[in-house]
Amino acid sequence: MSFEVYILGSNSAAPAHGRHHTSQMLYIQDQQFMVDCGEGAQMQMKKYGLRKNRLNHIFISHLHGDHYLGLMGLLSTMHLNGRKQDLFLYGPVGLAEIITIQLKHANTKMNYPIHFKELRSPKPELILENEKLTVHTIPLQHRIPCNGFLFREKQKPRKLIKEKIVSNNLSIRHINSLKNGKDIVDENGDIIFRNKDFTRTAKKSRSYAYCSDTKYDESLIPLISEVDLLYHEGTFLHDMLDRAEETFHTTVHQAATIAEKANVGQLIIGHFSNRYRELQPLLEEAKSVFENAHLAEEGRQFTIDE
Amino acid sequence: MSFEVYILGSNSAAPAHGRHHTSQMLYIQDQQFMVDCGEGAQMQMKKYGLRKNRLNHIFISHLHGDHYLGLMGLLSTMHLNGRKQDLFLYGPVGLAEIITIQLKHANTKMNYPIHFKELRSPKPELILENEKLTVHTIPLQHRIPCNGFLFREKQKPRKLIKEKIVSNNLSIRHINSLKNGKDIVDENGDIIFRNKDFTRTAKKSRSYAYCSDTKYDESLIPLISEVDLLYHEGTFLHDMLDRAEETFHTTVHQAATIAEKANVGQLIIGHFSNRYRELQPLLEEAKSVFENAHLAEEGRQFTIDE
Repeated sequence: MSFEVYILGSNSAAPAHGRHHTSQMLYIQDQQFMVDCGEGAQMQMKKYGLRKNRLNHIFISHLHGDHYLGLMGLLSTMHLNGRKQDLFLYGPVGLAEIITIQLKHANTKMNYPIHFKELRSPKPELILENEKLTVHTIPLQHRIPCNGFLFREKQKPRKLIKEKIVSNNLSIRHINSLKNGKDIVDENGDIIFRNKDFTRTAKKSRSYAYCSDTKYDESLIPLISEVDLLYHEGTFLHDMLDRAEETFHTTVHQAATIAEKANVGQLIIGHFSNRYRELQPLLEEAKSVFENAHLAEEGRQFTIDE
Repeated sequence: MSFEVYILGSNSAAPAHGRHHTSQMLYIQDQQFMVDCGEGAQMQMKKYGLRKNRLNHIFISHLHGDHYLGLMGLLSTMHLNGRKQDLFLYGPVGLAEIITIQLKHANTKMNYPIHFKELRSPKPELILENEKLTVHTIPLQHRIPCNGFLFREKQKPRKLIKEKIVSNNLSIRHINSLKNGKDIVDENGDIIFRNKDFTRTAKKSRSYAYCSDTKYDESLIPLISEVDLLYHEGTFLHDMLDRAEETFHTTVHQAATIAEKANVGQLIIGHFSNRYRELQPLLEEAKSVFENAHLAEEGRQFTIDE
């Protein structure tokens, strides 16, 4: 089952050097999500062959233009393409007003319902849960209200050893108990089949944390501890630390430090300042602190294996 | 002196087939203008090497997303680039509200003043005049309030025949009279130098009319009569006439008919429906009615010679 992050863009502020604004598409098992939606995201999706027919949840971190100005166009295209199914939009207070006012002046009533979930809590909160996964906010410290997002698969059921199930002719009720990690007992409560003899360890639950935009903030560490994949903004090289602090951004060195301290699997850095035409120095700075670091280059796909 | 129209995009509704939403850049003498600003217009400007340092006036026809969703991003980039000079935005009621609300939620105060000129009149009106040119609205019949724009150079001064000026040792006062088409008279009012002996005919005043989006509307004809260059939307082939009428759009055949009846110099058709991957049939339909017709292909430049 897939767990993939596609980078559609990761430039900060203004598009430059052929790089687009921040946007990512996630495929987790059979579900599709978008995180941030900078201008041109819908064109980037076409360029990389990413469809939107399963995209029902879009998460916007904050209302700086480089993170959401492609959203209205994407919503319009969904409408023109005849979308009917519900769409859920998660973002700061103001997102609903911005969308609604544009629809009003276009005199457009969408063919599909949009459900706005405005994020108001300064603490992490569960904003989406279904049978496969959860999504929590990761409150970030930026110049305006801002959240990252933590996607985490739920604990998976233990894997059945099929040949043993068949040879012992177990019932559906017994099989479900085994999947849930229970032993099979008789009417006296005595164990007749031990779970560990009939099942193997469940596949691990995978997790992805998206953290942009934010100043260096160690209070993130417990929230993203041990995630398989972390995207953390790294707008500047560390020699621009003053500028990073002034603008509530992070240096690449700092981003890698967070990754190291949170003991994550892999780190993606992005949200690159326009001052960097070449990104190799940013990658080298990240790797000097946290070896398993990568650049959020457009069109790049990151996969978390099962 | 230049009079050029650059096509940044001309697809209708949703971007498709590698085509972007409507936007054009105009260079008239030493002045720069933008007409409509679909999503990605700022990236298209970069792609085609068009700068924005002389861009002080942006005209938005109407508030359907395919005509303005790139504006907020362009304004933000101007801000981030340190722009200081005044910017004038002309568009329907609502444009100011849409921009203002997004700035509010981004907690951004622009480095430069934006002057909104909301267009409310159902009749053509003069909205910009300087020493070189005028811009008038062209009220269009669409599903929401919509204006085209007519750019017209002012009457130019007659051209002096330099050698005759020199050989007759004329004063500055005399030269200015000649430029303005007057004869030179003595104190008794008798002609001493005839204007036609010292000047040549002035260069013609050039004109460009932009008409998108609109249903077929013959009341446009007197407003755009004899313009050198006309952009007129042609969303559909004529076999889709019913759909054109239903959506307040124009077929290519109708656009060419307007060009023919208004006796314009050249016609550009654009605002192509997504249903057309290949545009050649649209061009052929236009040419069957009005020979000097062209496609608004991205990156294409149209020049009106002096």
